[in-house]
Amino acid sequence: MKEAAQAGYEAWLRKRTVTDQTQLSLIMRWTNGIVLEEDDRYIQTAASELAEMIAAWTGRRPSDSVPGDGGGWLRIGTFMGSSEVARAFSEEEMSVVQEDGFRLRRLGERVLIAGMTGRGVLYGAFAFLRLMQTGDSLDELDELSNPANSLRLINQWDNVDGSIERGYSGQSIFYAEGEIVRDLSRVRDYARLLASVGINGIVINNVNVHKLETMFLTEKYLPRIVEVANVFRTYGIRLFLSINFAAPIELGDLPTADPLDEAVKDWWKERARELYGRIPDFGGFLVKADSEFRPGPFTYGRDHADGANMLAEALAPYGGLIVWRCFVYNCNQDWRDRKTDRARAAYDHFTPLDGRFMDNVVLQVKNGPMDFQVREPVSPLFGAMPNTNMLIEFQITQEYTGQQRHLCYLVPQWKEALDFDTYLRGEGSTVKKVADGSLFGRPLGGFAAVSNIGSDANWTGHPLAQANLYGYGRLAWDPDLSADGIAVEWTKQTFGHNDYVIRTVLAMLMSSWGVYESYTAPLGVGWMVKPNHHYGPDVDGYEYSMWGTYHFADCRGIGVDRSVHTGTGYAGQYHSPHSERFESAETTPDELLLFFHHVPYRHRLHSGKTVIQHIYDTHFEGAERAEELVDQWEGLKGYIDHNIFEQGLSRFQEQAEHAKEWRDVINTYFWRKSGIADEQGRTLY
Amino acid sequence: MKEAAQAGYEAWLRKRTVTDQTQLSLIMRWTNGIVLEEDDRYIQTAASELAEMIAAWTGRRPSDSVPGDGGGWLRIGTFMGSSEVARAFSEEEMSVVQEDGFRLRRLGERVLIAGMTGRGVLYGAFAFLRLMQTGDSLDELDELSNPANSLRLINQWDNVDGSIERGYSGQSIFYAEGEIVRDLSRVRDYARLLASVGINGIVINNVNVHKLETMFLTEKYLPRIVEVANVFRTYGIRLFLSINFAAPIELGDLPTADPLDEAVKDWWKERARELYGRIPDFGGFLVKADSEFRPGPFTYGRDHADGANMLAEALAPYGGLIVWRCFVYNCNQDWRDRKTDRARAAYDHFTPLDGRFMDNVVLQVKNGPMDFQVREPVSPLFGAMPNTNMLIEFQITQEYTGQQRHLCYLVPQWKEALDFDTYLRGEGSTVKKVADGSLFGRPLGGFAAVSNIGSDANWTGHPLAQANLYGYGRLAWDPDLSADGIAVEWTKQTFGHNDYVIRTVLAMLMSSWGVYESYTAPLGVGWMVKPNHHYGPDVDGYEYSMWGTYHFADCRGIGVDRSVHTGTGYAGQYHSPHSERFESAETTPDELLLFFHHVPYRHRLHSGKTVIQHIYDTHFEGAERAEELVDQWEGLKGYIDHNIFEQGLSRFQEQAEHAKEWRDVINTYFWRKSGIADEQGRTLY
Repeated sequence: MKEAAQAGYEAWLRKRTVTDQTQLSLIMRWTNGIVLEEDDRYIQTAASELAEMIAAWTGRRPSDSVPGDGGGWLRIGTFMGSSEVARAFSEEEMSVVQEDGFRLRRLGERVLIAGMTGRGVLYGAFAFLRLMQTGDSLDELDELSNPANSLRLINQWDNVDGSIERGYSGQSIFYAEGEIVRDLSRVRDYARLLASVGINGIVINNVNVHKLETMFLTEKYLPRIVEVANVFRTYGIRLFLSINFAAPIELGDLPTADPLDEAVKDWWKERARELYGRIPDFGGFLVKADSEFRPGPFTYGRDHADGANMLAEALAPYGGLIVWRCFVYNCNQDWRDRKTDRARAAYDHFTPLDGRFMDNVVLQVKNGPMDFQVREPVSPLFGAMPNTNMLIEFQITQEYTGQQRHLCYLVPQWKEALDFDTYLRGEGSTVKKVADGSLFGRPLGGFAAVSNIGSDANWTGHPLAQANLYGYGRLAWDPDLSADGIAVEWTKQTFGHNDYVIRTVLAMLMSSWGVYESYTAPLGVGWMVKPNHHYGPDVDGYEYSMWGTYHFADCRGIGVDRSVHTGTGYAGQYHSPHSERFESAETTPDELLLFFHHVPYRHRLHSGKTVIQHIYDTHFEGAERAEELVDQWEGLKGYIDHNIFEQGLSRFQEQAEHAKEWRDVINTYFWRKSGIADEQGRTLY
Repeated sequence: MKEAAQAGYEAWLRKRTVTDQTQLSLIMRWTNGIVLEEDDRYIQTAASELAEMIAAWTGRRPSDSVPGDGGGWLRIGTFMGSSEVARAFSEEEMSVVQEDGFRLRRLGERVLIAGMTGRGVLYGAFAFLRLMQTGDSLDELDELSNPANSLRLINQWDNVDGSIERGYSGQSIFYAEGEIVRDLSRVRDYARLLASVGINGIVINNVNVHKLETMFLTEKYLPRIVEVANVFRTYGIRLFLSINFAAPIELGDLPTADPLDEAVKDWWKERARELYGRIPDFGGFLVKADSEFRPGPFTYGRDHADGANMLAEALAPYGGLIVWRCFVYNCNQDWRDRKTDRARAAYDHFTPLDGRFMDNVVLQVKNGPMDFQVREPVSPLFGAMPNTNMLIEFQITQEYTGQQRHLCYLVPQWKEALDFDTYLRGEGSTVKKVADGSLFGRPLGGFAAVSNIGSDANWTGHPLAQANLYGYGRLAWDPDLSADGIAVEWTKQTFGHNDYVIRTVLAMLMSSWGVYESYTAPLGVGWMVKPNHHYGPDVDGYEYSMWGTYHFADCRGIGVDRSVHTGTGYAGQYHSPHSERFESAETTPDELLLFFHHVPYRHRLHSGKTVIQHIYDTHFEGAERAEELVDQWEGLKGYIDHNIFEQGLSRFQEQAEHAKEWRDVINTYFWRKSGIADEQGRTLY
């Protein structure tokens, strides 16, 4: 592949000669050898990743023994498998390392990369490489790192025809024309990227399981799926499949898919037996059931616990999991009906089932109650089911946040959700503690997220959108990392150590969510997008639809009354003090006002502005700030890879143009509807 | 094929035993023999059509000689070819029969079906069959019929992949999976239906000519196209092709498609030579150029006359025509720009070229200035180019008029356009006289229309939508026919002679346009449909688009100011008195008010109602009337074919449901926007 066409492919694992002298000396200082004693798959991967990256950076391949000349070297291995490793730590130091965790420690000329398991060593190796790329000294190195979340999953929404639902970076790297691709080398490179940020599970097909994908459970596809699983296994990642709840019928084996039917149970047990016979570490099934026209237990008068447990029973003997999505709502809603509230749906459906799910079932709950809007409150389901395992689901692919044509660094948004205090067990009952299982002492928990990668050479279309994939993985490992800290890490690894570049990219990333929010749907109301593809403004695009996604703007005001007193009652799904806070327009935060309340255009925000003036001001400012992104990026010319610069430039230019379209459509819509002029007399149409 | 699956296939040429005794006696009385003397393709077709239909109706096949027993019989032939035919008419009587015209005359026991040409005889035969199905006595039969229009064309918007652009009746009957279908028997049956109403030309591929269709001019497709031409020729229909103006480039032959380039001219001449070598009566090319992203002469700084004439020159030696569409406008308009007016575009583009087109060029002009909306004014281009041949283009396929799920009998709409007086040569300068060429003494003129048929067994999806195809052909032959007269003709042929059935279907057809208009976009403003597929209400669906299709509704009023004084000036494209009439809101007819003027919601119509109350009233009434259509249709149960009844019932039920959706979305939109309540206090949301 030509350089231009390849630009961005290496992402944050750049294999280029390091030119920064300080960094290069650091690397040279500590990487004279890599020594290991164990014949473990993951440790082998760790060693080869270390050797390859170091060779690429320095031009010198580390030896596989302790170097004679006294330079620094690496010893890698597990506490159980390597006496040399074990000797470097106390019993207590070893005992606090969890399954995927690791310790890094410098002892004289040695750097130890130590884990309880080979997988831990692999994560330690990538952590060491990250230190080489971002740090400045190892003298004081003594680090313990355990992942906060046991499950750190990626969901591919890839279809076997090669398309990707909500994919904005080309076609699938997994599939083409109804088949799994022959050459899995790109899948391997993806696995490497994922492992480097700690991902340990991947669902390789879309949650909407169509006809051909239903056959993934059959001989037609299984042999190739085994190969894919092998690729991911090398990098410590377990393979999961999305399944079709109606598969027993659709594959022609049974007349029913009733989860309480014995033949159905046996059918799934037989599938499990086959799967685990071929993929002993198979992760499990992801299920979208009774949602948006997908089949599910409701067809048979059963509930979600019946459905999930039946599958869970089939996988339990092998240690498999059922990941059950909670994205369940009435998608045939009548827009005239103001009593039904889609935001309530997940909570209403699932909380009555708390305690009924088997231990190997995990509910996958979207961060917000709607669907990955640029701004939503946190889903009240977090914390509402203390006797149920839960994953928090994010969307890395930017469906509603600019589709990788606009810059939107999502880590700050995710952080906000994770740090939200549910107060379920008093202060400090944050969502991240619900997700990781610690708040209620659940055995399983973690993160899931929809990937943003595709066949584009740079993986994500927008070169800076790689930061979201990177950031997701890092956050799943450690939700306490800061958004800007992650951004700096990613920037250094991707673009090198130039301060100006780091400062510029950091500023762009950190401002981007706010910029995007400012020129799109205002004050948390969401959904003002063109139907179906969801790109670009259409204020009424979903207003008269069946999807439960309304803003109720009229000539007097706008917003959805979700209070208990006069509205849908959604605010009451939160624990105190949020239930009281969201109940009143006076105490609801400005950025969520229209999500919770219908208010007149002249309602005054905490900011002191009226709603209508806030709309005008943010939209004029937002479009200006989008213009500034172009300027900021242009300032990087000559400082970063030319081809990546060009990739970014065309995106930023499109964003700036499109932000104006957003500005004008939104402002004009509200000017026409309210008849209230802009205080500053700027152009409305 | 089973009866149910086949229902409606015979359309208005029903081949069933006639059960009405009066009608049966009439047929038996006059069809004892069919006598002809000429070995002419079309006369042979005429004779076999007569014989087959009569045999099917009566169970008795006419003899091919004068019956011995004294019963009535048919003599068919041309004045030149049959001395027996010629003897029955005076020189003068013969001289007034035009090329496709015919005479029907009863002389004693003889009925003469006579034409100047074999094609005329064919049309005469179908006219005789129509009389048999609809009339009650031939005693006084002495009819002269000449077509008003020399060109009576059908445009198929079929793609070679089998899809049909704006098709609502299944897949193409011409193409499947990139090939012309093997079995052309359905194409033959379609040709028969078309010939029976006088169609004499068909363009067999979509005006948007994609990659594969561009190759229709090559050896890959030509041999099969010849076969299709043969099928149509049997029924007197000439085959036309839509061509891609950039074909010389796209087929890889030339680096340019510049119409003034000699190599390009030669290339098209060579194509013409090939085509006419295989299809001697090939009709010509239909061209959509420089429109909606199609290539055209503008690319080379040439104009439409340059483009059309270059092609015309290639076809002229063979008598071929260039049909050049005038649907040219800026489809990348900025919605913020209120000066550009799509309605003006065709007039502005083409009137400066008047007189520059060759004689074998015909401009194809849509009936209205926009695009087949339920209500538009007549295009001011009609009459504005006295030195140019013109076709009026209608859309039989119901893109914007309910997509064959709603009933909308379009003949009344077409009649209104045809009867519109342009005043270009004083009173009586109707559009139909522009179209037929008589107003300016043009050699060529006529009708073109986009077909509404597809692979559905009943051709048109909605069983009553057949009436539009039928009516189009009849109107192209004789624009003076009345809409209800055509409806009665069609109903009798399709459903038989039961008075109750005829009255019911007639009432449904004749009210349907008004019903559809009443619950959709009000007062001529148009375009309040969901983007792309155009089905269902979306008031702002095209409001912020690039397509030039706006209503400019705000909290105070609605409509497009197209006056000369304060608006886009479009009203000035009409001749007096229309230019004055449309210039003022006071004199613009209610039904077009919002097409020409932006008025406050409380503006009072000639009807006495305010605009806003008119909107509410028509929408409530329209939805009620749609409900009544269900009742009317249900009353036909047992009176018409059961399968056709069921086909219709599900459509009428859908229409009634969907009319409520239209009612509520439109009313709610304007209630929310205007804040003005319904005077009658009905439910708005």
